[in-house]
Amino acid sequence: MEDILNLRYALDTFYFLVSGALVMWMAAGFAMLEAGLVRSKNTAEILTKNVALFAIACIMYMLMGYNIMYAGDAIWSPEGIGGIIPAFNLDFMFGGDNDPVNVLKQDPAAWYDGNYYSAMSDFFFQVVFVATAMSIVSGAVAERMKLWAFLIFAVFMTGFIYPMQGYWKWGGGFLDAANFQDFAGSGVVHLCGAVAALAGVLLLGARKGKYGADGSVHPIPGANMPLATLGTFILWLGWFGFNGGSELILSSVEEANAVAAVFVNTNMAAAGGVVAAMILSRLLFGKTDLTMVLNGALAGLVAITAEPLAGTPLQSTLIGAAGGIIVVLSIIGLDKLKIDDPVGAISVHGTVGMWGLIAVAFTNADATIGAQLYGLVVIFAWTFITAGLVWFAIKMVMGIRVTEEEEYEGLDLTDIGLEAYPEFTSAN
Amino acid sequence: MEDILNLRYALDTFYFLVSGALVMWMAAGFAMLEAGLVRSKNTAEILTKNVALFAIACIMYMLMGYNIMYAGDAIWSPEGIGGIIPAFNLDFMFGGDNDPVNVLKQDPAAWYDGNYYSAMSDFFFQVVFVATAMSIVSGAVAERMKLWAFLIFAVFMTGFIYPMQGYWKWGGGFLDAANFQDFAGSGVVHLCGAVAALAGVLLLGARKGKYGADGSVHPIPGANMPLATLGTFILWLGWFGFNGGSELILSSVEEANAVAAVFVNTNMAAAGGVVAAMILSRLLFGKTDLTMVLNGALAGLVAITAEPLAGTPLQSTLIGAAGGIIVVLSIIGLDKLKIDDPVGAISVHGTVGMWGLIAVAFTNADATIGAQLYGLVVIFAWTFITAGLVWFAIKMVMGIRVTEEEEYEGLDLTDIGLEAYPEFTSAN
Amino acid sequence: MEDILNLRYALDTFYFLVSGALVMWMAAGFAMLEAGLVRSKNTAEILTKNVALFAIACIMYMLMGYNIMYAGDAIWSPEGIGGIIPAFNLDFMFGGDNDPVNVLKQDPAAWYDGNYYSAMSDFFFQVVFVATAMSIVSGAVAERMKLWAFLIFAVFMTGFIYPMQGYWKWGGGFLDAANFQDFAGSGVVHLCGAVAALAGVLLLGARKGKYGADGSVHPIPGANMPLATLGTFILWLGWFGFNGGSELILSSVEEANAVAAVFVNTNMAAAGGVVAAMILSRLLFGKTDLTMVLNGALAGLVAITAEPLAGTPLQSTLIGAAGGIIVVLSIIGLDKLKIDDPVGAISVHGTVGMWGLIAVAFTNADATIGAQLYGLVVIFAWTFITAGLVWFAIKMVMGIRVTEEEEYEGLDLTDIGLEAYPEFTSAN
Repeated sequence: MEDILNLRYALDTFYFLVSGALVMWMAAGFAMLEAGLVRSKNTAEILTKNVALFAIACIMYMLMGYNIMYAGDAIWSPEGIGGIIPAFNLDFMFGGDNDPVNVLKQDPAAWYDGNYYSAMSDFFFQVVFVATAMSIVSGAVAERMKLWAFLIFAVFMTGFIYPMQGYWKWGGGFLDAANFQDFAGSGVVHLCGAVAALAGVLLLGARKGKYGADGSVHPIPGANMPLATLGTFILWLGWFGFNGGSELILSSVEEANAVAAVFVNTNMAAAGGVVAAMILSRLLFGKTDLTMVLNGALAGLVAITAEPLAGTPLQSTLIGAAGGIIVVLSIIGLDKLKIDDPVGAISVHGTVGMWGLIAVAFTNADATIGAQLYGLVVIFAWTFITAGLVWFAIKMVMGIRVTEEEEYEGLDLTDIGLEAYPEFTSAN
Repeated sequence: MEDILNLRYALDTFYFLVSGALVMWMAAGFAMLEAGLVRSKNTAEILTKNVALFAIACIMYMLMGYNIMYAGDAIWSPEGIGGIIPAFNLDFMFGGDNDPVNVLKQDPAAWYDGNYYSAMSDFFFQVVFVATAMSIVSGAVAERMKLWAFLIFAVFMTGFIYPMQGYWKWGGGFLDAANFQDFAGSGVVHLCGAVAALAGVLLLGARKGKYGADGSVHPIPGANMPLATLGTFILWLGWFGFNGGSELILSSVEEANAVAAVFVNTNMAAAGGVVAAMILSRLLFGKTDLTMVLNGALAGLVAITAEPLAGTPLQSTLIGAAGGIIVVLSIIGLDKLKIDDPVGAISVHGTVGMWGLIAVAFTNADATIGAQLYGLVVIFAWTFITAGLVWFAIKMVMGIRVTEEEEYEGLDLTDIGLEAYPEFTSAN
Repeated sequence: MEDILNLRYALDTFYFLVSGALVMWMAAGFAMLEAGLVRSKNTAEILTKNVALFAIACIMYMLMGYNIMYAGDAIWSPEGIGGIIPAFNLDFMFGGDNDPVNVLKQDPAAWYDGNYYSAMSDFFFQVVFVATAMSIVSGAVAERMKLWAFLIFAVFMTGFIYPMQGYWKWGGGFLDAANFQDFAGSGVVHLCGAVAALAGVLLLGARKGKYGADGSVHPIPGANMPLATLGTFILWLGWFGFNGGSELILSSVEEANAVAAVFVNTNMAAAGGVVAAMILSRLLFGKTDLTMVLNGALAGLVAITAEPLAGTPLQSTLIGAAGGIIVVLSIIGLDKLKIDDPVGAISVHGTVGMWGLIAVAFTNADATIGAQLYGLVVIFAWTFITAGLVWFAIKMVMGIRVTEEEEYEGLDLTDIGLEAYPEFTSAN
């Protein structure tokens, strides 16, 4: 029996690590997607942002975030207060006697029910999620924000804003107690990231030239469509880890079936999003707009993330397809509101994230529309207020927007000191 | 014992899901390879095609293809007729009482011999295979086919043409009964895809300017070699899932050894293909042509796909090397026949796919040249005739080729409405 | 019990295969990184080199290298001499009676202690390591070396130079006996590759125009920053296989915990390297130089590779951060010495590799600075002398550097016969 437990532990840990590696890979997906959708003069800057935010997210989550989000829930830790104020535990970082890894080494049998895999693998899986949430922000504020303003925001977002609402649901806080359902994070990750982005965009304003005084919208084409497509495929692949790993355990027939169903439903939702966005784009514009097709795939993925298990493959396809419709309409709608999001991140992760939370009620019999809306509103309000305050404080202290001249010349020149494609473009 | 069965089931399911994720990743590989090998004015279109075909393949295979290819073989389903007409089963899609997942949940012990992993994971693994077959087509018809003609073809190919011949071999049909050997699909996937492409190319004709009236061949260089190389590496990686997963089970010493041998042999065949194509290119052209080196890698992979288990690593290297020679000669030969394949897909997957089927007889004692040729001819004939009919019907109804002016201006303008690289190129 | 052993064997083999696939993927990472950091006129050549070196490494390691590095250590093989001259065993390649796979099939119980996974999976994991070492070389000698001189060097490096020093440590040779610690190869892989590159660069000389007669340094910007960033992300992902797989076994609570800790520490070191290099770059240059940020990530990874298990996540972050500082200073320092390394490979893998070896002594109580320095000096001296001799011999026989005119026109024209980006650049 001990041998069986050892093997289960090893298999579940490995499943977690592989899933986490796939989610880490999503960082590359966001980097390529965003680099493809901005102009070449801002490409090196957005690449820098994407690498840097991942590193900042990992460090801040190790130092603070993981302790906020999960410490109160773990066997080695004190309780939080009322499910709202989390406990806090520094052992993980310093590897002390209460370090989860040390605790588990001492008595493998004792923990199996509650902790059936390496605590380190849990940290690894969770840390790449916070990086995902932060990656969502970087695209929406592209092409006019100061690099270091963004990096400072990342410190607060990944160390505090994200972990707090994450604790409320996944750490066992009050949203979890209220029966709010969010399997892999349409709300906790995607909506949270998108709302933080929205708060920034509202304070930042649109790029010069995007909206005419007469209400007209001037598209600003991205410089590199193959990169954007590559990024989408990377995200699609990474999502198997994102949703598939969120079952958290694999080592039995029931759990393995569940993980497999999650893989299939995740894939089908993306496929549904592609086809729906493709057809809608053809009908609306007369062209099959590649960027809409890509956003359709991502919208399908975001839509199914809150409940990729309960539905059938066909239901999941339809939920994803609805996401594909919603994202196209949302992108058009935000432009009407002059909310300038160069990569469509607020629509993909925010608008469709909300749809995903609501759609849970259609396939999961345990969910209610009421609880889903409650969670949605809490996450939206918390993130919008706290992120807004942080953006505002940064704006007051150091400013968040580059000068008009710097914006014209491009952030690569201003902040990075090199060009992304020095031989392909000539000072545009 | 129950615990052991649970663990075996979980491990085999996970192995299948990881393998399937790697095969899904091949979709990105084809997209990058093809985007790198066409001109910039057709790049956004080929990217759109690659994303869309994957989505269509998933949906059509869920709705029809999987039911055709595997329903008759499964424990929950009726028999087909004579191994030629398959059974058909809609339970998978709708999640009814006969849904494999539900059936397996009820009695895990009963199924172990026949169904030792999640049925959903099986679907996931199979659905990415059909997408691979379809990806092969998109490159060959690039730069002059109407987008939506291609997408409509994809519906028929992935819902019917591919699954039928897949049933004949992998679903337990008459080719399987005839001792035709095709481990991971040199025939069922690669030859089938290539022949469907060939039928389309013959109806479509060559790109304007490719072949002179005097029989001369004018190379049309691809716009982005790093993308083509990236695509090749992605495919190489994905092939470990493609071939490695096709052992279908991992959870014993014998099976684990087999999977490991498949990984090694697959890798060595690709290496052999690279070195052979590289040396031949140097000898023939005086230059080490990168596109030939990349096609050599892919040819090695296609060549070993029909039998990556039985041979030694050295034998596999040589089979791959032969593939690398064959692909270079085939590309030259097809150009002599004025069969215009912008990315070399017909040579890589078709000509070398045939070589792979025949090469089985050199390492697998159970195989015979006769049975291999029988399978080859059946797959070729079935696919050529049915695909040809579908292409022809589409041509009659809506046309398959863009106008000469549209071809000159590029499909991105015609079908997509945006440019792949708006800042790098100026209306060429 | 037999069932448990079967499952352990299968799980550990699968873990090895997945890890190996991730390391294979690093080949794509090096290709993209290097292609992004050279000029467009040399891009197709460096892509060709990266594909070709991987293939050559696999073939030479199968024919010779694996036999040198591991034959003397295995249960089916004779002993070497004094831990310096290895045994040699051709069974692997030819699949004879002593072939490890066959041996293990006969008596699964007997081997478990010593060989708890498929020998083929071990070969797969090891063969992708030698390719990594060789990939390090290709970037440093970029933009002025003859393609085939490089390919011939690859034959010797992967067939003999790398395996010999690999045997001394990982094959159970004299460095292992001397308590030299190198978990995943800061020394055996990264330092070895970097020193082979250094020997080549010294014989090759700097690119024309890099260093002025007055001691000035003229930066030569890379052509494609998104590619370089993608390459860095690929390497970051692949490193989870590189370090994570180097625990070699996963199938118990202790081992699973160890693998998970390696994943976390590897990730944290990369994050530390990014943040440190980013801040230092901002302070030194006034700009957040993307190439320095990327090199910071890689430096963090190289630094932790010699000991990713013993430290806490916080310690690992700091070791990585020190790597990020060191790499920036090393790049500046090498330029002062007029050692021209277009991609910074010697600094990333060599200078920081040395730091990684020394840093082991800070977290691993079993390590001593003395033994670490001993191993460092042995690897450096062996590689520098043997690689230097091979480079010198190639230089005498066929020359290693292209002509000045060829260098001006670019290696793509000289050696490959096609352009990487024919539509984006005009004869620069």
